[in-house]
This record gives sequence, structure tokens and C-alpha cells, in this order.
Amino acid sequence: MSTPGAPGTPGTPPERVTIKDVAAAAGVSKGAVSLAFNHKAGVSEATRDRIFAAARRLGWAPNSSARSLSRQSVDTIGLAICRPARLLGLEPFYMEFISGIESVLAARDCSLLLRLVGSLEEEITLQERWWKERQIAGSVLVDFHRQDPRIAPLRELGLPAVAVGHPDLTGGFPSVWTDDASAVAEAVRYLAALGHRRIARVGGPAGLGHSAIRAEAFDRTLAELGLRGGRHAETDFSGEEGARATRSLLLTPDRPTAIVYDNDIMAVAGLGVAAEMGVSVPDDLSLLAWDDSQLCRLTHPTLSAMSHDVHRFGAEVTEVLFDVIAGEEVRPRPVATPSLVPRRSTAPPRAQGVRP
Amino acid sequence: MSTPGAPGTPGTPPERVTIKDVAAAAGVSKGAVSLAFNHKAGVSEATRDRIFAAARRLGWAPNSSARSLSRQSVDTIGLAICRPARLLGLEPFYMEFISGIESVLAARDCSLLLRLVGSLEEEITLQERWWKERQIAGSVLVDFHRQDPRIAPLRELGLPAVAVGHPDLTGGFPSVWTDDASAVAEAVRYLAALGHRRIARVGGPAGLGHSAIRAEAFDRTLAELGLRGGRHAETDFSGEEGARATRSLLLTPDRPTAIVYDNDIMAVAGLGVAAEMGVSVPDDLSLLAWDDSQLCRLTHPTLSAMSHDVHRFGAEVTEVLFDVIAGEEVRPRPVATPSLVPRRSTAPPRAQGVRP
Repeated sequence: MSTPGAPGTPGTPPERVTIKDVAAAAGVSKGAVSLAFNHKAGVSEATRDRIFAAARRLGWAPNSSARSLSRQSVDTIGLAICRPARLLGLEPFYMEFISGIESVLAARDCSLLLRLVGSLEEEITLQERWWKERQIAGSVLVDFHRQDPRIAPLRELGLPAVAVGHPDLTGGFPSVWTDDASAVAEAVRYLAALGHRRIARVGGPAGLGHSAIRAEAFDRTLAELGLRGGRHAETDFSGEEGARATRSLLLTPDRPTAIVYDNDIMAVAGLGVAAEMGVSVPDDLSLLAWDDSQLCRLTHPTLSAMSHDVHRFGAEVTEVLFDVIAGEEVRPRPVATPSLVPRRSTAPPRAQGVRP
Repeated sequence: MSTPGAPGTPGTPPERVTIKDVAAAAGVSKGAVSLAFNHKAGVSEATRDRIFAAARRLGWAPNSSARSLSRQSVDTIGLAICRPARLLGLEPFYMEFISGIESVLAARDCSLLLRLVGSLEEEITLQERWWKERQIAGSVLVDFHRQDPRIAPLRELGLPAVAVGHPDLTGGFPSVWTDDASAVAEAVRYLAALGHRRIARVGGPAGLGHSAIRAEAFDRTLAELGLRGGRHAETDFSGEEGARATRSLLLTPDRPTAIVYDNDIMAVAGLGVAAEMGVSVPDDLSLLAWDDSQLCRLTHPTLSAMSHDVHRFGAEVTEVLFDVIAGEEVRPRPVATPSLVPRRSTAPPRAQGVRP
């Protein structure tokens, strides 16, 4: 049923045609064909087009394994994310992070091999396979847990990788991270300076290393300021859970006057809940988002945020990965610490104690 | 400087070790090693682990080209998106679409090769390379333009592909699409039934085929209803441009009483602009979003939308691609037409005095 070349029919390219035939058809040497297909300098754009056209006409393709061995260059890097597929689409963070990765890859004519996995064990098997089958030149490792099970097997494998996470979590992999503890401390000190005494936090899953780091820094800073800690809500980072957590915090008898969120979609959800419950932002409730995608500038009131250029973060991680792949010495490096961008959702609390 | 196996050092696995050595070290036959690495049934989980451990210890990896030729299975599919990297991170559509693709791929133990390209010409070259070098088993083609330049070369290549777009645009590729014209007609009729007479549209880039289809359907429906057409604003789909377009529509002397947006982030931005300008939603202005990610349920008022399960759309496209790759007959098929989900952002215009 499959006519060669018809769309929708897989049509394996025939194997009998050789590089010699392509060279002859294009009127060039075999070396020129090889240069063209290896994307190397030495053939003009016009010649390259002629070679590709001849190869296409004859149905010839280079042997990719031989090619990748001979050119020793980097085509593809891997990224496995252990999140439910549905959630990935809901949070701006990963899309901005991936867009940053892609900005560096596009400039180098490289691609990203992306996979959602159900567990860290599945990721270990996957990364092993990708690496052993030469599908990737290296990987970006994300969402580190405390005592992360990926560290030992992937180090043993010798996989070139960059870990996105604090060096305390990433077991010796070259790591790139944001100093979340300092950023949380700044967020809490800012709200306390505005006069807030009851500050709560809506965080991500407790199992994630960076959630734990933020939670500890939050409690530590409150303790330093002599304020009561421990008002954390754990979520899956979705707007729905952010809304639920906000609602339940606002229903407590001594409800918080300020809430810090672990991303921005949950802060947007918090704003919706406040409006729904007739709680005025910022007069009765201050909201502080994290990451600061465009969402924070589109709401009314606009959302104050611990701003963090996630796109740039993804780009820097990728640049470091290329250094690692090239065998260069790489030191762990923090990228810019998220910094406070005050907008309209934070203000001193209105007359303390007079509210019902 | 590179100790083999240390993280951050690429460490190419030595080539002298053979499958025989791995089999001997694991105490199994060569066939068992082959089965394990080809992810086929016939070896127990424990044996598989032993084989992988032995291969890891010896630094052995199967030849991926030989492997992919022998097992004739599908590992990887391609997706090239022609959008600026920054924009990709800003709009929920692609992340939800990709999450739908990944949900099907994960169940089949397959991965997505993702690439941002700067032009459709670049995409043609990339898809050719991916296919000829056997990096992909097939591709998802998106964002069709009228007279799309990808059609001829990629059909000639015999690339198994699914086109996301109306069959009028996709030049004979098996296509999966949403019936945008009907959905636009429903949106306009609904707003007209509420009593709106000045309805505007904030759309995507005019060059995209589906933007053109929506614009035509919008004008056609207004004409059928005897209403004035032509109030379109063109954007890049970002919230910023959605805000700018809304502001400029609200500054016209006979400003619209209802606006239909081409995605949801622009409708969220429209809501922010209305609040900033003291225009009450829905009393003075009705807003209708498209796609309907969780954003529409998080704002206050919640946003009415032409709802469309983008995650499911991505999943269906991927299922069709696997049929195409398997050589099955595939007919163009529309997925569910976006359907109206009225929420709090649409109502009869106040000026008409017809509110119940």
C-alpha cells in the first residue's frame, strides 16, 4: 500500500545507493559529499544544496553511526523530567527553562531529546540507554531530591551532565543553581519590614531538594526575626493546588497577612481566591510570587515577585553542559539570585487586629 | 584531566570490549545481552540488571545503528517549532501540546526530539537530516502557512509525518486539526445573542494558516449577522501584545463591547487592561478566551473560553503519527471542535439594558 515518497508511508531509504553515486550525480568528490553531510566548512552553499538534492533524488542517507563516530561532534542533549505530563503543561517554569535551553541549542545546530519519566529509577535506565546508544552527548539533570538515587549510577556511567540544583544535593555533578535560601530570606525580610507578622508560604512538593531548602530558609528567617514559623502548604505547583492552599490559609482564625508562593501561577491563583473571598490585595493581604513570568505583569493588581530569569537560567545550564562535554574544568556556579521586584500586590498590612 | 567515570568527563566507552565479554561477565548468552539492550521480552528483570551492570563495568555499549536497523522499532519522533525561543515559554499552548505528545511517548518508551528553528527553510533541512540520519522515525509538523514551503520537499523525502492543521493547508500530509472556523462562528453568534453589536478579535500572526481561517470565519459570521467586521488586531500571541491590542481597541471612539482572543494568556492580559482602565468586566466589556488552560479558571472574574483540550490534541496527533509510521491508512481527522465554556467574563452589554 505504500508508494515510495507518498506522505504517510515510512519508506526506508534503499541501501544499495552509495556515496559514490551521490558524488557522481552531484558532480563532486566523495569527500565533498561527506563534508556536506557532516555540516563542515569546505563546500559552498550552492554545492551543498546540489549534493542534498542528489542524495534526496537517489534516496541516499549517510550512515549516522559512522558519521557520529567520525565527526565527534555534539548533536543532541537529553532532558528527562519526572513530572506528570499534565502538570508540565500547567506551569510556566519548564517551558521557559526549555526555551532557554533551545536558544543555545539552536545557535549550535543541536537538538533536545525530551522525555517525561514516571520515576527517578526510570530516568536512570533511560539516561543509560541514551548514553550507551550514543543518542545524546550529555544531559541536563533536574529536580534533585535529597540523597538522589540518580547520582551514583550516572556518575559511574561517566555521563557528561550538568545538575540543576544546589551542590549539597547534586553529589559532585557540575551544578548550576539559584541561591534560593538567600532569596527566601530577602522575601521574608521585605514582608516583615512592611509590618507583616503572620507570613505563610505556599511551596512545592516537600520531596524536592529545592523545596526543602526554601522551607528551611523560610523558618530560619522567621525565627531570626522573632516571628512564628511553620505555616507552609505543600502543593504540586499547579494553580488548582495554589488556590486550595490559599483558601485554606485564609480560613484559619489568625490568617496570614502575607503569603509567599513557590511559583507564579499559584500566586495568580491566590489573587483569584482573594478576590472571590472579598479579601483586598494588597490592603488585607500581600502576595509575593516566584519566578516572575509575564503572568505577574498581566494581573491587576500586578504581582510582586522574586524575579528570576528562567529562560537565561536554561541557557546558562546548557552553556555549562557544552563545557562539560568538551572536557573543560567546570566549577559549580550559582546564577543570579532571584531578586525582589515589588509591584502592586505587596504593601503594609492595613490596621492590624481590627479585621474580623 | 579526565578520570574515566568521574562526573563531568565525557569518557567515550572503549571499543575493544565485545558483546561476548559482556555475556561472559554476566554469565548469560550473547542473545540475552542483545535482548536486554533491545528492551525485548525473554530476560528477567534481575538478569537484565546483571547484564546492564556488566556492560557498565566493562564500558560496553551496543552499536546503535546496527541496533536500530535490527529492531526496526520506533524510538524517537521529531518536532520543530518555528517560534522565537522567548515566545515559546510565554504561551501555554505549546507546553500543553508537548505534554500531550509526551504522555503517549512515555507509554511507548519513546522520546521527543525538540528543536526551535528560525525559518521554515531551516526546518526542511533539519527534518531531512533527522530522517536521513535515522534520528527520528517520524515528525509532527505544526504551524502551517498558506502554500507552506515544507510540503513539497518533505513529501519527496518520504518522511512519515502528521500535519497539525486543516487539510486545506497541509498539502496531502495526514492531518489532525480543530475546526476553528466553526468554533469562531459559535463564539461570535454567542456574543451577538447576548446583545453585542461591536465585537473585536485579537488574533495571532496573520501569516499562520489557522489565524487566517479564524479571521475569515470571524468576518463571515459578522456579515451573516449583519454586524460590522474587520476589527482584528494581529499579535505574536504574547500577553504583552494582547494587552497592547486591548488597550488600543478600548481607546477607539466606538469601542467594542466584546473581544474574542486567540489564546488565553492574551485574554488574561485583556482582563488586566480592563481593570487598569476602569472598564468593568463583564458589565462594560465581555472577554472570550481561546484554548482554555487553567489560567481561565484562576482569574477573577473567571474567563469564558472556547475550550479545547490541548493536551489531548497533542496525544491524538502522536497516536496518528504512530499509525503513519506503522504504515497504516490514515484519514485526515478533526479532533473535538473547541466548545464554548461560559464563565464570568461574558454577559449582555450593560448599555443595552437587557440584563436579567
